[in-house]
Amino acid sequence: MKAAYMFGAGDVRIQDVADPTIQNPTDAIVRTVRACICGSDLHPYHSMDNDEHGVPMGHELIGIVEETGSQVTTVSKGDFVIAPFSFSDNTCSFCRDGFHTACKHGGFYGSPETGGLQAELSRIPLADGSLVKVPGLSENDTDLFPSLLTLSDVYLTGYHAAHMGHVQAGKTVTVIGDGAVGLSAVLAAKQLGAEQIILMGRHTSRTDLGREFGATDVVAERGEEGVAKVLELTGGEGSHVVLEAVGHMPAYEQSYGVVRTGGVISRVGVPQYEEAPVGFGSLFGKNITLTGGPAPVRVYIEQNIPLVLEGTINPGKVFDRTVTLDDAPAGYAAMDAREALKVLLIV
Amino acid sequence: MKAAYMFGAGDVRIQDVADPTIQNPTDAIVRTVRACICGSDLHPYHSMDNDEHGVPMGHELIGIVEETGSQVTTVSKGDFVIAPFSFSDNTCSFCRDGFHTACKHGGFYGSPETGGLQAELSRIPLADGSLVKVPGLSENDTDLFPSLLTLSDVYLTGYHAAHMGHVQAGKTVTVIGDGAVGLSAVLAAKQLGAEQIILMGRHTSRTDLGREFGATDVVAERGEEGVAKVLELTGGEGSHVVLEAVGHMPAYEQSYGVVRTGGVISRVGVPQYEEAPVGFGSLFGKNITLTGGPAPVRVYIEQNIPLVLEGTINPGKVFDRTVTLDDAPAGYAAMDAREALKVLLIV
Repeated sequence: MKAAYMFGAGDVRIQDVADPTIQNPTDAIVRTVRACICGSDLHPYHSMDNDEHGVPMGHELIGIVEETGSQVTTVSKGDFVIAPFSFSDNTCSFCRDGFHTACKHGGFYGSPETGGLQAELSRIPLADGSLVKVPGLSENDTDLFPSLLTLSDVYLTGYHAAHMGHVQAGKTVTVIGDGAVGLSAVLAAKQLGAEQIILMGRHTSRTDLGREFGATDVVAERGEEGVAKVLELTGGEGSHVVLEAVGHMPAYEQSYGVVRTGGVISRVGVPQYEEAPVGFGSLFGKNITLTGGPAPVRVYIEQNIPLVLEGTINPGKVFDRTVTLDDAPAGYAAMDAREALKVLLIV
Repeated sequence: MKAAYMFGAGDVRIQDVADPTIQNPTDAIVRTVRACICGSDLHPYHSMDNDEHGVPMGHELIGIVEETGSQVTTVSKGDFVIAPFSFSDNTCSFCRDGFHTACKHGGFYGSPETGGLQAELSRIPLADGSLVKVPGLSENDTDLFPSLLTLSDVYLTGYHAAHMGHVQAGKTVTVIGDGAVGLSAVLAAKQLGAEQIILMGRHTSRTDLGREFGATDVVAERGEEGVAKVLELTGGEGSHVVLEAVGHMPAYEQSYGVVRTGGVISRVGVPQYEEAPVGFGSLFGKNITLTGGPAPVRVYIEQNIPLVLEGTINPGKVFDRTVTLDDAPAGYAAMDAREALKVLLIV
């Protein structure tokens, strides 16, 4: 089968590799229908050391179950499924708490053992916990594929930010970052009833989609100027909730600059720093709550499938380019050059 | 009147100063019945530079209203009142959110303008918002005074930690610190229904009171050893909620060491640091929430008065020494030497 591998910074290739096989009775093999490239795939694309074996790429897919191990009971051959970006048993105490990314028996794709999901076929461990069936869907419902695929990661990562930030009716929400996760966070905030949604971003084509998703205001300025603008838009009081979808220190600093006393900063941009201000002058003095982390998207998938199927939400609009798996290397290059927001892969 | 002033590290004196007077029509003058010394008063006691004018001390009192300004409507001469440690209008948007310590028109005691509350008489600004009447109480109900006084700061600071940490039935709570705030946090966690309450502290006389307040386990070890002990007590999974009542970096590090995936660290110990770990390896990777700040005790007072009057809670047990205002300097010395946990002042 074909699969995308990265061999070093800027070097993605489609390889012919052996088909995956059932290794544990809880595995399933899934034939990919759509996969995609994640903003997080760009981190190694910038900095990876050369590796002659290559690293299997991708962690988002929708597809059709090809084969199941003997202990798999919730999905069977022919089912249309969504695979969350991490696998999990959905039964351990952390999964029961709703934090599947910390599943005691789960893990992440992209290792030699699990492979990546930018591939024609994938082995999904703990299939009963990891795969979510989309009932009644066929391979002809192509219009629905992009939005269903976002339930594998990007939309529900934005949703996780909004959920952890306790976004609710009447709240003012500021979203930092106009990437695909930031725009997803806008849509999620709208879904959860936010009254005012301020999107901080400076790429007009992206912030336009943000407005379509529900942003009431766009602030292109950054740093102190951006903070001043958000304060102005919130009567000088700041934003009840800040959804931080970038992960760099300036975005963190902007977050505590715009958040209201007693408010929440919810991060889903993976922090590219370990230490940050949390003392009296930043978080403590104003009773600010800092929350967020890797999104346990598994817990949010079921409730969002009907919204996609009914057309209530259309988070798949974050895909602004579609290529075949063979052209995935060009897709990486386009996202890296910011010519594409997020690239869909037809497999 | 007599009032406590600090003139430098270790130098507290009782001074004869002019009686406070009504300066704004929203002021009230209160005659102190009981005041006390706070753990936070020990910070300047350790480090204050000499000041020939001295700084007025204290921010906790219960007392009797002596006089009110022309615009004061909710309290009048003769009322028995509790004064929260900060004054606030109780009407601005931040007060309505429940964050009175950030009141737009409020502030803190201990400046030359406001004076301190370790004094025979005090001027309370914004009396309608700041003072809470205790109906039916007289100066003879001395047994109730210690617990009522804790509603001015210490008990409700512990309560704020538990409230912000979303302590509820069935949760495991770890309290870091066996000072008066930590013990108050134990009592608050018990009140909010925590199932298991682990108190980290190593002063037996204090942790004994912690057990009386509801601690189910006491961990005397610190650092890695202490973390290992708490993990052992929680089936290896960690504590749903950590209430951090110390404010030093080792307590912060202990907090993220013992907190469960998806759990909450709630801080009320004023951080003696500005930067701290918050990245993937500390908070983000495990979806940890960090919350807390200066306690807006005003918002919690009314609901707790009946519990004190009925004897449901007795947070005043944190006072293990009582002296007169004249002997306040000895009270400071006793707390500083850890001979006393918290000192009550009869005024």
